[in-house]
Amino acid sequence: MLKGNVIYGQSGGPSSAINSSALGVILESFAHKDVISKVYMMHHGIGGAINDDLIDVTNESVEELEKLKYTSGAFFGSIRYKLKPAEEDETDYKKILETLKKHDIHYFFYNGGNDSMDTCNKISKYLNKVGYPCRVIGIPKTIDNDLPITDHTPGFGTSAKFIANSFIDVSLDNYSYPQGRPIIIEVMGRHAGWLTAASSLANLTGYGPDLIYLPEVSFDMDKFLKDVKRIMDEKHRCLVAVSEGITYKDGSFVAKATKAVDAFGHARLGGVASSLASEIDEKLGLNAKSIELSFLQRGASLVASKTDIEEGVNVGRKAVEFALNGETDRMVTIIRTSDNPYKVEYKSCHLQDVANIEKKVPLEWITKEGNNLTSEFTKYCLPLIEGELEHSFKNGLLDIPHFKNYRK
Amino acid sequence: MLKGNVIYGQSGGPSSAINSSALGVILESFAHKDVISKVYMMHHGIGGAINDDLIDVTNESVEELEKLKYTSGAFFGSIRYKLKPAEEDETDYKKILETLKKHDIHYFFYNGGNDSMDTCNKISKYLNKVGYPCRVIGIPKTIDNDLPITDHTPGFGTSAKFIANSFIDVSLDNYSYPQGRPIIIEVMGRHAGWLTAASSLANLTGYGPDLIYLPEVSFDMDKFLKDVKRIMDEKHRCLVAVSEGITYKDGSFVAKATKAVDAFGHARLGGVASSLASEIDEKLGLNAKSIELSFLQRGASLVASKTDIEEGVNVGRKAVEFALNGETDRMVTIIRTSDNPYKVEYKSCHLQDVANIEKKVPLEWITKEGNNLTSEFTKYCLPLIEGELEHSFKNGLLDIPHFKNYRK
Repeated sequence: MLKGNVIYGQSGGPSSAINSSALGVILESFAHKDVISKVYMMHHGIGGAINDDLIDVTNESVEELEKLKYTSGAFFGSIRYKLKPAEEDETDYKKILETLKKHDIHYFFYNGGNDSMDTCNKISKYLNKVGYPCRVIGIPKTIDNDLPITDHTPGFGTSAKFIANSFIDVSLDNYSYPQGRPIIIEVMGRHAGWLTAASSLANLTGYGPDLIYLPEVSFDMDKFLKDVKRIMDEKHRCLVAVSEGITYKDGSFVAKATKAVDAFGHARLGGVASSLASEIDEKLGLNAKSIELSFLQRGASLVASKTDIEEGVNVGRKAVEFALNGETDRMVTIIRTSDNPYKVEYKSCHLQDVANIEKKVPLEWITKEGNNLTSEFTKYCLPLIEGELEHSFKNGLLDIPHFKNYRK
Repeated sequence: MLKGNVIYGQSGGPSSAINSSALGVILESFAHKDVISKVYMMHHGIGGAINDDLIDVTNESVEELEKLKYTSGAFFGSIRYKLKPAEEDETDYKKILETLKKHDIHYFFYNGGNDSMDTCNKISKYLNKVGYPCRVIGIPKTIDNDLPITDHTPGFGTSAKFIANSFIDVSLDNYSYPQGRPIIIEVMGRHAGWLTAASSLANLTGYGPDLIYLPEVSFDMDKFLKDVKRIMDEKHRCLVAVSEGITYKDGSFVAKATKAVDAFGHARLGGVASSLASEIDEKLGLNAKSIELSFLQRGASLVASKTDIEEGVNVGRKAVEFALNGETDRMVTIIRTSDNPYKVEYKSCHLQDVANIEKKVPLEWITKEGNNLTSEFTKYCLPLIEGELEHSFKNGLLDIPHFKNYRK
């Protein structure tokens, strides 16, 4: 058995489940004290490894650590930093190696999406080349759910749950008055429409979006306006889900193509939802409302999916288990073995098979009209939002951890 | 004992707790079957009474009715409709009287904010004048918390909880990277800053707003920019809470006064948060982000306050109890008798004493700098967000009621 300490890092966009995976790594490391003496967190991802900026969590209490399950953001700090190929520039790699040697680290875990798996893969190759014994395992995380091979990614379920239920809330609001409005809700996901598709789950309650637009299908403004008009005539209200990344047939973004946003000059203020609302106002003379779920959907800790958070913990635990069993240069994957009852197994795949690859919503799960999802998507997505966590709140506020030597 | 049926109506803006009060009225009416045979809901508030558009809920199951606790919006339909004074035009009043007579209704309950209490008061006076025996009781509801006499209003606690916890989520997001941003979050409340003030509770966890701006204090753009710069220099991130209704010293709205929104022409797209973000970009050269909590904060059923929802039920029950005891032309009030442990009693006051009067945040609860709240506010607000509801979700989705003869 390779003896050594553990290092773990967070990378990419914040999400609801990434800290659960940190917890999984920490708890599983604690369970192998014969092999692992110390557990270090990189402060702000790979930057922490490069600059020897580490947080030692070995002596933190399990009670306080458990609160990571209820904590959104990247609690130990994330980073967006692309390592140059070692063949071009070894500077960063050498510094990382120094940090590993200094702290007797031989287990390296990196938690993130496509880009982070690329980082992880590069480090694995370098350490292998220089002959430093270190097991390198990637842990999947992204609310965007766009990693290949794994059935889904931790973080997606909780954000999907927040989104679906926010649509119910807004729909109920829109049903309050005799005459409702067109309401356009903008959801994250620039290239893959998974999160926007999750809004369709709200329709199971009778209060969901009438129209759903994903980046997987090119957008047709005339058809959109006709559909909104028809639904308004019928129901006196219309709820629309739109991905921030929808494009026209020619590939140009809808958000930028409308006059409203161009005239303003600030894409930040516009966004695709407000652009579509402006179009409705101008062309149909209706008083449309736009809502951006913004950062709320990627925190989403007000109503985490228990399934998602538990899987977040599990992929962290499995990463340690697989590494202890000798695996390296691999990413933990979630493989679904049954929809109903929902069951999964944890496996692993080569890092290079996931690095920089995006998985999109299958076109056969999108209706022929291109503006809704089929029951196949429901079957896939519904189990992922199942269950609520207890004890997330203390005095009505999210119970955030305070550690002995970090964010006291 | 005055025998007769019950009518109940919802009015004004949707909120999280209004359907709990409907539930309270219904359950308490069911408990007095010797006096009350039938319970009717107005479909879309006073409009339902005028047009004899009622929903009979007498035979709905308690199990399904209980789901009203988890349901946001105005489930039986709301309306914004100002009754003309009866001295000017009796048309509406005569129609309402016909509806009451037709269905043998002698108990009239109306649920809403300031304007709704005015409506309630007018109807009470009219029925008294024409000698129709009917007990008229107002039930307080508004997320804005701006009704006088009552310690607070049902709906406020849940929205306050959503807001405080959303600030924690966004703050954790902003702490994820080494270099955070100025983030401006816009909160509802045009004239009274209660909801914006609630963001201050997030600071109890260490993850709250650095600066808070209420409509009660006039806004100074230069001071604001200086404060943001100072905090960015210090913390490398800055979280700002701003009420949609803040004004400059001369009374003009901040949202409309900035160039950004003027140039655009659509106030809808702008809003005060994006206006402030633009100012920061332009004057400080920082990349500020604006977020509007929009309709999400008034639905807020993802994380209801148990205290709030239970009080919502209670004010509904008390309205029926008070009416059965002979009270009329009054509104139910919540009187706090202790902060810790938090205790309240239910009383009533004259409708005319609350109609059209707005209660603002006391100036002594705002810090001298005018950009934060004192501990007095925390003591007042914290008990109102306490406790979580169980069983709000089914298969990960809000469990919305379906009735036999309404929204099946």
